[in-house]
Amino acid sequence: MSENTPLRLGIAGLGTVGTGVVKIIRQQAALLSARAGRDVVITAVSARDQSRDRGVSLTGYAWETDAVALAKRDDVDVFVELIGGDTGVAKDAVEAALALGKDVVTANKALLAHHGQSLAEMAENNGSVIRYEAAVAGGIPVIKSLLEGLAGNEITRVMGVMNGTCNYILTNMEKSGRGYNALFDECAELGYLEADPNLDVGGIDAGHKLALLASIAFGTQVDFDAVELEGIQRIELQDIKHAAEMGFRIKLLGVTQMTGRGLEQRMTPCLVPAESPLGQLEGGTNMVVIEGNHVEQVVLRGPGAGMGPTASAVMGDVMDIARGIRIPTFGVPAAKLQKATSAKAASPAPFYLRVGLHDKPGAMAKIATILGEAGISIDRMRQLSHADETAPVLIVTHKCMRQSLDEALHTIAQSKVVATAPVALRIENL
Amino acid sequence: MSENTPLRLGIAGLGTVGTGVVKIIRQQAALLSARAGRDVVITAVSARDQSRDRGVSLTGYAWETDAVALAKRDDVDVFVELIGGDTGVAKDAVEAALALGKDVVTANKALLAHHGQSLAEMAENNGSVIRYEAAVAGGIPVIKSLLEGLAGNEITRVMGVMNGTCNYILTNMEKSGRGYNALFDECAELGYLEADPNLDVGGIDAGHKLALLASIAFGTQVDFDAVELEGIQRIELQDIKHAAEMGFRIKLLGVTQMTGRGLEQRMTPCLVPAESPLGQLEGGTNMVVIEGNHVEQVVLRGPGAGMGPTASAVMGDVMDIARGIRIPTFGVPAAKLQKATSAKAASPAPFYLRVGLHDKPGAMAKIATILGEAGISIDRMRQLSHADETAPVLIVTHKCMRQSLDEALHTIAQSKVVATAPVALRIENL
Repeated sequence: MSENTPLRLGIAGLGTVGTGVVKIIRQQAALLSARAGRDVVITAVSARDQSRDRGVSLTGYAWETDAVALAKRDDVDVFVELIGGDTGVAKDAVEAALALGKDVVTANKALLAHHGQSLAEMAENNGSVIRYEAAVAGGIPVIKSLLEGLAGNEITRVMGVMNGTCNYILTNMEKSGRGYNALFDECAELGYLEADPNLDVGGIDAGHKLALLASIAFGTQVDFDAVELEGIQRIELQDIKHAAEMGFRIKLLGVTQMTGRGLEQRMTPCLVPAESPLGQLEGGTNMVVIEGNHVEQVVLRGPGAGMGPTASAVMGDVMDIARGIRIPTFGVPAAKLQKATSAKAASPAPFYLRVGLHDKPGAMAKIATILGEAGISIDRMRQLSHADETAPVLIVTHKCMRQSLDEALHTIAQSKVVATAPVALRIENL
Repeated sequence: MSENTPLRLGIAGLGTVGTGVVKIIRQQAALLSARAGRDVVITAVSARDQSRDRGVSLTGYAWETDAVALAKRDDVDVFVELIGGDTGVAKDAVEAALALGKDVVTANKALLAHHGQSLAEMAENNGSVIRYEAAVAGGIPVIKSLLEGLAGNEITRVMGVMNGTCNYILTNMEKSGRGYNALFDECAELGYLEADPNLDVGGIDAGHKLALLASIAFGTQVDFDAVELEGIQRIELQDIKHAAEMGFRIKLLGVTQMTGRGLEQRMTPCLVPAESPLGQLEGGTNMVVIEGNHVEQVVLRGPGAGMGPTASAVMGDVMDIARGIRIPTFGVPAAKLQKATSAKAASPAPFYLRVGLHDKPGAMAKIATILGEAGISIDRMRQLSHADETAPVLIVTHKCMRQSLDEALHTIAQSKVVATAPVALRIENL
């Protein structure tokens, strides 16, 4: 593709994000052209339903019912994949585009989290690039910052709150005093949930994002299966209340760092200091913290979802391609990405535990004994008043390894003193 | 420059930042090479004093005493200008490099704020690029975010706290209760001040940065002379105390936006809500807020100065060049940058005023009358207790235009009731 010729996009998927991209290109053609040094045009689109009114004109674009056919069109230079899903037509169409040497822009975190390595290899073998700014943290240019802006650093840690729906639920539980289920239902009504809600509240969507950031940060092959994943479904109002009393808020927090034992990747609900930037993050906003050996710490905050912000990220990638920016998918050639040893939770931390005990004498002593035998020392322990026969006990441990704790919790769960499975939340003193 | 051949740097200026860049390249050669797809090497350096021990080896680099000679060397592909200053050798050397079609990486905000347009034209005429991430907000990849990541947006406003020294002074006045002069002296001792301290505390340095961001954001020719500039030298402890009582903090805040009257660019001390992200920013940290018509709002926070962060930004630019990223200096070709009409302070706001009155009957009435005649209505007015013959009066106005206020303040200053020149600070309800 030489400069000055128009860059021709084929857009597959005309949901919220796809429609947003079409709007930007129709409304701001002159501005985009001035910045890119060439026109950026849509030649063809595809979606399941051609008849639906999307609030934007599709006049002048060829229509394909099949995204793979769209990807293969001669008049498409860049295949913009906004279908979603880690298998099926999204993957087929991306592969078809790459096989023909076309560039790909995608917002599909699941696809890259599961097939990032093979797709990166395929892209490089065919002289294509894959860009995916919209896949992580919505409108925040976090991929660009990590991949390019901070390329002079050895990255030491990346952290973030990267699922707006979970953060909306958690912050509104605290604000409104309503429980998890009520806020889950509200999110469903507001359209904040993925078709499979477990992608959101189970931490999977945010885990996908973390796996992509880890690959760029540490030059490793994307390894989503190695992410320690835990959702927010078991967080109760009392957890949020007790966290607040200790000066903390509960966030679905992603952390990845390279440790002596291997690559740590975790996306789990954590207690973070209420006064920290991550603790203060409210609603659907996302935040990513990048730490490097020279830059110290950079914090990026912005909208994690929505038509405008996500389309903005897609357009950032399109503009990069229009301007001739061509960088390997994860920052170094795919063949140079290392297979990292996984260290799911390599660093010790204090934990917050909530255990529901049968209200019988000796139950608390039993728990304390099991923890002690596992080498986990207790900082604070407190039995709460209760109306029924299950007595909630809150425990804050001293620093321990998650693995030791899990073993102890397994023993606790099997003991006869426990009425409900324990909840364990890491305390992250940022 | 083809790929796979080493990218050869000539580094002019071996102060803190230059030394930091040398350290990164010596310590992380393999990492940089893997990411850039080619080696990044230093071939020559220049500085005033060859004998000084900089804590890093300069072995293997040619030494030039003259930066212009360095810029012209055949074995230099990229001229890295870390000398500083808007005239003299820095400008001569950058022009010499551009004239020979070499790329330039610089941290020199003054040079670009004063000569950005002519240098951008020169670069484009010679097929060179100029990169300057380190010129604005230290280690934060803000230029890259604005120029590239958010290129799909019509930018609506950019705001920021971009001088760490001023923020250090202002936050420590509040924290320690020490006055401006004591903290100014402390900054001098800590080496936080530019050789000409007025660049920092007069707001000039931050104004340079704002002018560069405005050019990228709005596609306009850099126009530093049109920045409404005001330093922090007249801020007193009582201003900080009274701002805090109203729920505000005082920050040297930059704001630029395109208004119906033209381009607004101001870098002035403002009252911002204490609970806002900008209000909470402490010490030498910088923050830039970018608002676009699609992305809504992105907030970037990080270290605004220091060896590591600034060298990180320089290296981000070097890596971009090594990877073949070539974008016009301010995002669109220099010939397409518009000459903007200047609207120094186009948007109305409430203001905080402190006026030192001669303690005589009728003085307050006189002030109120002058403001009223200028069409400025008063929200609150309060005379403070005082030990000497000057009675400080605090006034919070309703929304008004800065120009009307300035006219009224001029009248007030000339009236016989005033003992000291009034202080007026904009209240920015972010």
